[in-house]
Amino acid sequence: MTVNTAAGTALPLGFSAHVANIGIKDATDDFVVIASDAPASGAGVFTQSRFAGPSVNLSRRSVGDGSVRAFVVVSKNANVANGRAGAEQAEEVLKGVATAIGCNPYDIVLASTGVIGRLYPIEKIRAHITDLRYPFNETDALRSAEAMMTTDTVAKVASAVVGEGPARIVGIAKGVGMMEPDMATLIVLFMTDARLSPGDLRPIFHSVMDRTFNCLSIDTDTSTSDTAAIMANGRAGFVERTEFAAALLDVALSLTKQIARDGEGATKLIEVTVDRARDEVQAKRVAKSILNSPLVKTAVHGADPNWGRVAMAVGKCQGDTDISPDRVIIRFGSQEVYPSLLDGSGLDALKSYMTGPEVRIHVSLMTGNDACTVYGCDLSDGYVRINADYTT
Amino acid sequence: MTVNTAAGTALPLGFSAHVANIGIKDATDDFVVIASDAPASGAGVFTQSRFAGPSVNLSRRSVGDGSVRAFVVVSKNANVANGRAGAEQAEEVLKGVATAIGCNPYDIVLASTGVIGRLYPIEKIRAHITDLRYPFNETDALRSAEAMMTTDTVAKVASAVVGEGPARIVGIAKGVGMMEPDMATLIVLFMTDARLSPGDLRPIFHSVMDRTFNCLSIDTDTSTSDTAAIMANGRAGFVERTEFAAALLDVALSLTKQIARDGEGATKLIEVTVDRARDEVQAKRVAKSILNSPLVKTAVHGADPNWGRVAMAVGKCQGDTDISPDRVIIRFGSQEVYPSLLDGSGLDALKSYMTGPEVRIHVSLMTGNDACTVYGCDLSDGYVRINADYTT
Repeated sequence: MTVNTAAGTALPLGFSAHVANIGIKDATDDFVVIASDAPASGAGVFTQSRFAGPSVNLSRRSVGDGSVRAFVVVSKNANVANGRAGAEQAEEVLKGVATAIGCNPYDIVLASTGVIGRLYPIEKIRAHITDLRYPFNETDALRSAEAMMTTDTVAKVASAVVGEGPARIVGIAKGVGMMEPDMATLIVLFMTDARLSPGDLRPIFHSVMDRTFNCLSIDTDTSTSDTAAIMANGRAGFVERTEFAAALLDVALSLTKQIARDGEGATKLIEVTVDRARDEVQAKRVAKSILNSPLVKTAVHGADPNWGRVAMAVGKCQGDTDISPDRVIIRFGSQEVYPSLLDGSGLDALKSYMTGPEVRIHVSLMTGNDACTVYGCDLSDGYVRINADYTT
Repeated sequence: MTVNTAAGTALPLGFSAHVANIGIKDATDDFVVIASDAPASGAGVFTQSRFAGPSVNLSRRSVGDGSVRAFVVVSKNANVANGRAGAEQAEEVLKGVATAIGCNPYDIVLASTGVIGRLYPIEKIRAHITDLRYPFNETDALRSAEAMMTTDTVAKVASAVVGEGPARIVGIAKGVGMMEPDMATLIVLFMTDARLSPGDLRPIFHSVMDRTFNCLSIDTDTSTSDTAAIMANGRAGFVERTEFAAALLDVALSLTKQIARDGEGATKLIEVTVDRARDEVQAKRVAKSILNSPLVKTAVHGADPNWGRVAMAVGKCQGDTDISPDRVIIRFGSQEVYPSLLDGSGLDALKSYMTGPEVRIHVSLMTGNDACTVYGCDLSDGYVRINADYTT
């Protein structure tokens, strides 16, 4: 089993893609269809937002029966908060693509990403879909990953091989802001030619998402459009379930870190591990409190050895009355910074560590034996510039 | 009753202050004592942080019996996360000042603000307190407000007169970052010569703090040192309780807005009102979700009419299953932006509104009849620069 993002971006057996620009916003690619030539098992997790868009609502229905045939991505416009007209446009896209492929519209997962509160340029989309011819001719997943990008600066692809066939797992992802996934992240799509029943696939997929994309935060803002989904068409035959789960975890973790590293304006990956916690929920709550603290994020950005802000972020978990400053241990990398206070040279060493491209913060709570690791990035003036001028 | 921040910064009857530089960090003032010449009623609210410093722990004990004689502020060093040595230093400061004034150390509220995890330069403080002579000669509250500043760019003072005497209420505050107060804010001190028993003062004070400083957020980070306290020495005689409560609310609201406007790197005040909510808790949760969204804050900073981000921030209150996109109304100022979608000229008008110094966002949830207003500021590259280089 290997994860390789530099090579191996070809789609698994039986999958093909259509990638195009249809002028949603500008001249860059903005429309992707990835289809399986045979029915596939599918699973998905979606945003829990109360303002979820029609793409999410329709896709939730599509994965409900465990059968998925295609993924459709419309980039540069989220089609969210558009009322009845927006819902009708999403239905029209599904039906048009289903006719071209020759499948049920409710076997298609539709993901849409971009500005909120603007209707699609539906005439352009309608004209394009009318001309759509299946089978498709694109077999490199990298092209699909590129077409999904909005403020992303690099395309995110990861892959692994697993089992005797061997089967392949290829994942693509986009998203760099409005990013605190609660059940999924912006758009993450996995294609595999391994054979798994929907009943086997679903729990593996949910468990892997919980340990990867649900442990990611760029800016605490939960998108209205978060979508993560997988198709398994069985073309490479049977694989052992635990082996498949391990390979999928590697692919998902690689994509999670690629996204964190490319967070809007990010210059560093931040990994926060909280262990010796009462339970996983406490570990994750404290880890997210550190990861999401603007003051911790700016200190990491400036390589300022101001570790007191990590103490602050632990302290603001006020409901956790079993956490005591008398027992907590805080480390940056392998360097303990609390309770053994740092002197001048210790602070210099910490500053030097913080200038690197990855900063690992490790907190032991001493309230139990559970742990959680979460992934994010620093907060820079670049984040502010990108988001102060987004629509105009 | 008037609130006037330009004039009327003299301390109320019977109060005097000592303001000095004792070299905590640099040559700016960093040490304040404000004392009443007679025993006073007192009340206080403090951070709920699990990493609360010894200043907070001691002050919580001081206000417990409703009797307060003096406020002490040490600025530029928070004395937090310093273990046993830090606790002993805080006790030493209290006892030294108590000896100078001639009062019980546990009638003194000690507030400390600045870097976390560094011990006080205790020899300098000890030498200074040994020379302290009471009564003090400073009677302008503005000097105390200035001496408390860390990254503040302006001193915050507000005052009101109330009743027949009339009595006066003077409040001073500091704080521009690490600011999501949960029971209080960084440091807010009120002095009044009105006569109120501790039993009358405490509920009024807590209620006013809930509606002002607990509705303020700069960056979601809760300080380890938040302290708000009041002394009422009765020198101006009796005042009617509801009249006093209204005057205190005006003073506290003025200070709250002064702090929001001076948030680290801030260029605009953001006021978010959520009404027609199921209860005040729901109204405050949704309002804070909007106010604290980095994407809403950056859009306001750039005057980008990207109102969809407000829909996103409402949507991420996922537990509020009674909130429906079919009923929510979103306004900027008096301009409705959802559900009636804006066309080109509407977006231009919205952009123009957002270039002003105050941006009011108003969301009606249609889940009930309760409301809440919260106060904050935009997120700028200035915030990042201030906090990337804080200690170094």
